[in-house]
Order: sequence, then C-alpha cells, then structure tokens
Amino acid sequence: MNAFDFLTPQRNPKIGTGITMMLDKGMGPVHVIDLLEISGQYVDLAKFGWGTSAIHNREIIQEKVEIYQSYDVNPYPGGTLFEIAYLQNKFDEFLNEVDELGFGAVEISDGTIEISPDERERIISVVKDNGFLAITEVGKKDPAKDHLLTPEKRLEIVNRDLEYGADLVIMEAREGGKGIGLFDSHGEVKEDDLQILIEGTDVEKIIWEAPQKNQQAYFILKFGANVNLGNIPPDEITALETMRLGLRGDTLGKVNLG
Amino acid sequence: MNAFDFLTPQRNPKIGTGITMMLDKGMGPVHVIDLLEISGQYVDLAKFGWGTSAIHNREIIQEKVEIYQSYDVNPYPGGTLFEIAYLQNKFDEFLNEVDELGFGAVEISDGTIEISPDERERIISVVKDNGFLAITEVGKKDPAKDHLLTPEKRLEIVNRDLEYGADLVIMEAREGGKGIGLFDSHGEVKEDDLQILIEGTDVEKIIWEAPQKNQQAYFILKFGANVNLGNIPPDEITALETMRLGLRGDTLGKVNLG
Amino acid sequence: MNAFDFLTPQRNPKIGTGITMMLDKGMGPVHVIDLLEISGQYVDLAKFGWGTSAIHNREIIQEKVEIYQSYDVNPYPGGTLFEIAYLQNKFDEFLNEVDELGFGAVEISDGTIEISPDERERIISVVKDNGFLAITEVGKKDPAKDHLLTPEKRLEIVNRDLEYGADLVIMEAREGGKGIGLFDSHGEVKEDDLQILIEGTDVEKIIWEAPQKNQQAYFILKFGANVNLGNIPPDEITALETMRLGLRGDTLGKVNLG
Repeated sequence: MNAFDFLTPQRNPKIGTGITMMLDKGMGPVHVIDLLEISGQYVDLAKFGWGTSAIHNREIIQEKVEIYQSYDVNPYPGGTLFEIAYLQNKFDEFLNEVDELGFGAVEISDGTIEISPDERERIISVVKDNGFLAITEVGKKDPAKDHLLTPEKRLEIVNRDLEYGADLVIMEAREGGKGIGLFDSHGEVKEDDLQILIEGTDVEKIIWEAPQKNQQAYFILKFGANVNLGNIPPDEITALETMRLGLRGDTLGKVNLG
Repeated sequence: MNAFDFLTPQRNPKIGTGITMMLDKGMGPVHVIDLLEISGQYVDLAKFGWGTSAIHNREIIQEKVEIYQSYDVNPYPGGTLFEIAYLQNKFDEFLNEVDELGFGAVEISDGTIEISPDERERIISVVKDNGFLAITEVGKKDPAKDHLLTPEKRLEIVNRDLEYGADLVIMEAREGGKGIGLFDSHGEVKEDDLQILIEGTDVEKIIWEAPQKNQQAYFILKFGANVNLGNIPPDEITALETMRLGLRGDTLGKVNLG
Repeated sequence: MNAFDFLTPQRNPKIGTGITMMLDKGMGPVHVIDLLEISGQYVDLAKFGWGTSAIHNREIIQEKVEIYQSYDVNPYPGGTLFEIAYLQNKFDEFLNEVDELGFGAVEISDGTIEISPDERERIISVVKDNGFLAITEVGKKDPAKDHLLTPEKRLEIVNRDLEYGADLVIMEAREGGKGIGLFDSHGEVKEDDLQILIEGTDVEKIIWEAPQKNQQAYFILKFGANVNLGNIPPDEITALETMRLGLRGDTLGKVNLG
C-alpha cells in the first residue's frame, strides 16, 4: 500500500498505454536496483542509450537485463547500436547477441544511416519473428538533417512502420530535447507539426521522447495521464509519475486521468 | 576527524541558523544512506518534493524517514501534498498519516490553492499542537500568479506566518529557480525585492530556496555562511557546504563565517 | 568480454594519452564502487573537486581513495585546496596529508591566488620529488580575471609548467564550462584561441576541461578518440567513452581512433 493512498488517484501504467521509457546511459547495477525498488512500477521500457551497452562487460549487461526484467521492465539497446551493426552487415549477429544478453525489444532507427523502406519492412519482420518487441524511431540525430523531415514525412514514416508491424514508434528528441524533432531550439513543442501527427495516426502507438520537465507536462496536459513518454532521466521517474497523477503543481487539477 | 582539518574553518549547521534543506524527489534508500554517510551532517531538513511520497510504498517511506532521522535530518512531505489533502477536506487524515509515517515537520503552502488567513492560522496551530515543526511557504507554483505577489505582499505573509507560530518560512523558487519568487527569468536575484524582505522581517527565520549554484553563492556572500538555503539537489550538498566555508573559488576569502 | 564486442573498435585509455579525468564532487563510496564496477576502465583520474575533501571524514576519504586505486584510477584533491594551504603557509602539511590520505597526484593551480613563477617551479619540484603526479592548471576561477589571460599568456604558462616538470596541464573550464577559459558564454569553443595553443605546445600533455557534451564531442572530432578530457561528470563517463569510440550519433563514422 502506498503512503497517503487515500489522497491519490490510480492508473495502471503497465497495461496498454501510459508507457514510461527510461534512458539508462550506463547506470551501475546498484543504482538500477535502488531506483526500481522504490519506483520500478512506473517504468515500462529501459533504453540502454545509443551504443552504451557495447562498452560494458557481457556479464554486467546480462545482470542489468535480469534486474530490469525482475521488476517487469523491458530493457533494450539503443537504435544507434542497431545502425552500427546494420552498417557493418552484422544485423544477424546483432540480433543473436541481443537475444543472448536477454533483451526483450529491439529499436530500429535510421538516425545516422539510410535504410530503404523495403529493408525497414524486412527488419521489422525479422525482429518480430524472433519474438522481440519491435520499436522504431523517426528522426535524424544531426539537427541539420532532422530539419529536412517535414511533419508530413514523419507522419508517413510512422504510419508505414505501423503497417510493417512495428509495436511502437518513437518520436526522436535525443537526450537534450532542443532543436530536434517536434521541439524548437528552446525545447518548446512545435504545435502545428504535432497537430499534423495527431490527426494522421494512432497516438497510442507513439512514444514521445520528452527529456525535459516542461515537455513532459505539455504532453500530459494535452493527451492525459496515459500518454507514452520516453528518454526520461532515471532521476525523473518519480517526478514524471507525480505529474501524470496531478500530484505536482504543473498538472494539479488539470490532468485527464483517462 | 575531517581530512585536511588544519585548513578548514568550522561552523555548526545543526544548531540555530545555517539550515540546509535538501530536495529529495524520490531517491532510493541506498542512495540516501550513501549520501548521508559522507555528508549527512550538512543536511538539516529533507523535503520529499511535492506529492512524491504519495506514490511510494508506505514501508519504503517509513524506511527512508528512519534513515534520515538516524542521521539527525528532519524529513517532511512537500507542501503540494498538504494542499491536495486540504482541497479534499482530508487535512486530519493527512496529518495522521504524516505522523504514522514518522515525518517530523509539515509544510503549509498555498502554491496551487487559496487558504484564508484564519484557516492558515488554525492549520499552523494544529500542526504545532501535534508536535511537528511548522514550515510555511510563500509563493505560487504558476509563474503568472506568482508575479502578482508584490514583495510587500510576500513580506506581509512572512510576518503573519511567524506571528501565527510558524517555525520557518520558505521563499518559493521551485526546483528550477527561474522566473519565480525572488528570481528573474535568468535565475538572478531581484535585489530590490529582496531588500524589502530583509528590512521588514527576521531573515534567520527564512529558508531561501536556491536550487542553482550562483543563487547559493549569492545568498552566502550576502548573509554569510549560516544563511538558510533550500531545494538543494542531493548531488550539491557537499558543494554547498564548501561554498558556505569558503572552500570553493566562488566564496573563497569572501564569506562571513558568522 | 564486452557485450557486442564484434561491433566495436578498441582503444586503451589507460596508457599514454586519451585520459578521462572525472569530477567527484562528494560522491558516496557506494556510488563510486557502483560506477567503477561498470565503467571504471574508462576513468584515469578522479578529481575530488575544489575543497570538497576537506569537509569529509578522514576515514571516508581514505576509503574512497582506496576504492579508486583498486580500479586503477588515480584520485587527487582539487587545486583550490592546494591554494588554501599555500595561502595559509601550510603547503608542507598539505602535502603530508595528501600522502597520508593516499592520493596519487597533486594539482597546482592559481585560480584564486597569485604564485610567482619561481614558487610554481619549486612547488612542482617538491610535488614530483615526493612521488606524486604533478598536474598544473591554467586559468582563473573569476571570469573577469580569467578574461585577462590572453591565449598567448595561457600558452606561455603551459609551456613553462611543462618545462618545470609538470606531467599534465589542465585548461580550466570549471564545473559549468561557460564564459571561462577557451569557452564563450554559450559554452562554444573559441577556435582562434584554441589554435594558438595547439600550434605552440604538445597537446598530448593538456587535459581539456570539457564538462558539456557538445564540448566533449568538439574535442574528440578535432583531436581524435585519445584526446585528454577533464571535469567529466560521473553520470557522463559511459557516454563520453561511447563518443570517443564513435558509438553515439555525434561522432559515429567521424572519429579518428588514433
């Protein structure tokens, strides 16, 4: 039973929407356990950011994966690692290693490389056929290239990925959340761009990367407590859940609990 | 005995003024112990920010409360949780739960709600009659509303709260410290506003929320090592104490050790 | 063996150049162990920032020093503590305490005080004669004073310190990395200033303080994977190593692995 349980609304973030994807950029195992012991129920996915999992010992990665899974969190390696493997023509070895390490999902992105639609379709199929959750990402790491993606183009990729069988589609905002994707250089949401996405697709399948507090509050106020949010820093997991539930000034009395 | 003890000045932050209030926004117990083991003597109050304590298991909150108290730190739930309880007409249940969880202080704020002076007086009395430290807060969470509070009005509330029996009064700056309370949009102190407060009340009863380093340095240089500071991030506890003692470039040779 | 080892390039950061100096501003021992257990091989030096080591218990400082050394990391107290000792005419006691605590390096700086070249030469000699790594720092803590140091003057000090026997020279950027040293008020590198340094000295002896990600990426892209970088926050140790190896979007396919 939670403290002050007579005061607080409930939601069940582990089922359906309301996903919180945390960004783990190299946490030690003790830190992971300590965090999940207090707030593990508020984390659904844990991304081992970009190529970070490739510089750590296999045993320690396996240990971390098991820790996450014991708290019902699905861990997966960052899309950049997939891209590196793809570039090196080592996608099969990559998928095998993902499996051996115990990860439960694969992120398919083209943030730094080019992948044809046919290839993307094939990869999503292989990922799903091997029993992984298939998460794709839309956006470029280089802001100059990312700015060339019109909202209409982003929408097209989202819908195509979903048709290809992707379980979830991430809207790229990187770790910083400024001047990238749907965010302007101050980290504010470009509302016209967002509107085009909302009107053209199933927003329940989208995870909005929203590393900054004001971004998280924006999406919660717009879509309700059960919006899917990603790239949440570990230290902000508890804070995010309180914003979802209207337990912080930013959203108090203003959230649709859905 | 401290390392390099022959080099460093002394102060006794646990007695009287010189309070450091830390913002705990959901730390795991191991993190809390690890921090307090090395720097616990430099923390006086630990605020479980806004409604964070309401989404954690009762046992874990009780465990954290006990950990803090074993290091002579007084923990308390954030004012927003009090406000939610007050809004729901559950102040008595709230106070009972605060007691059962073992907290030693209560924060009385109106950051998101309206409370009449009479009610505020009554609540402060009840909190004190039940043996808690009564800490009030002055300021609104919404910057637009907060800007309507003139420095004269803030001063009036501070003095009224002290008359009502508040032990300490917090000057709101939120977690960010920008465009709120005494800070402009860059996080710089509005000196004219501050001056009005200084001249009209007992600054030893005020805890200045100062989440940013430049803000902490400002208050230390202005009021001396024993100024009361709040909303200090856990990672900055050690750094703050070194600034108080003139052991960092920002204050070296310039602090009144009091 | 690392996870995904078939994907990743190798470098050996513990030998010669490619130094990573981490800023420890008061971490608890459990945090240190947890971090080094997963990424200790990517840390070469650990600076106990400014005077932080002087407010912690001797036993805990000794414990932390031993932990670092057990992971082959060389810990040392910040330059500000040296300056305070020098100001108080307690350099000998300082050096003795550094030795008793087990530190392996000494930073000699003049960020807040003035030291004549002769004195600087003598101190470097004493430090080295006592078996410590001698690391000097160039720059002033006060931005107003720091701006008076022309790039030519900085270059002169670097070369003089190396002549005096310094093992490494740190280019000051403080914890923030803005409006100080080689960085403008936005944290961008002043390229003309940097060029003057590059052309006039042995850059393999310089540790560039680069607390921000964009600064780290800049130096890695300019000098290659094995550039020496300092004031790296603990949470960014893993991320920095991935940038060195081209495992993050910022440097993927663009790093000289040297």
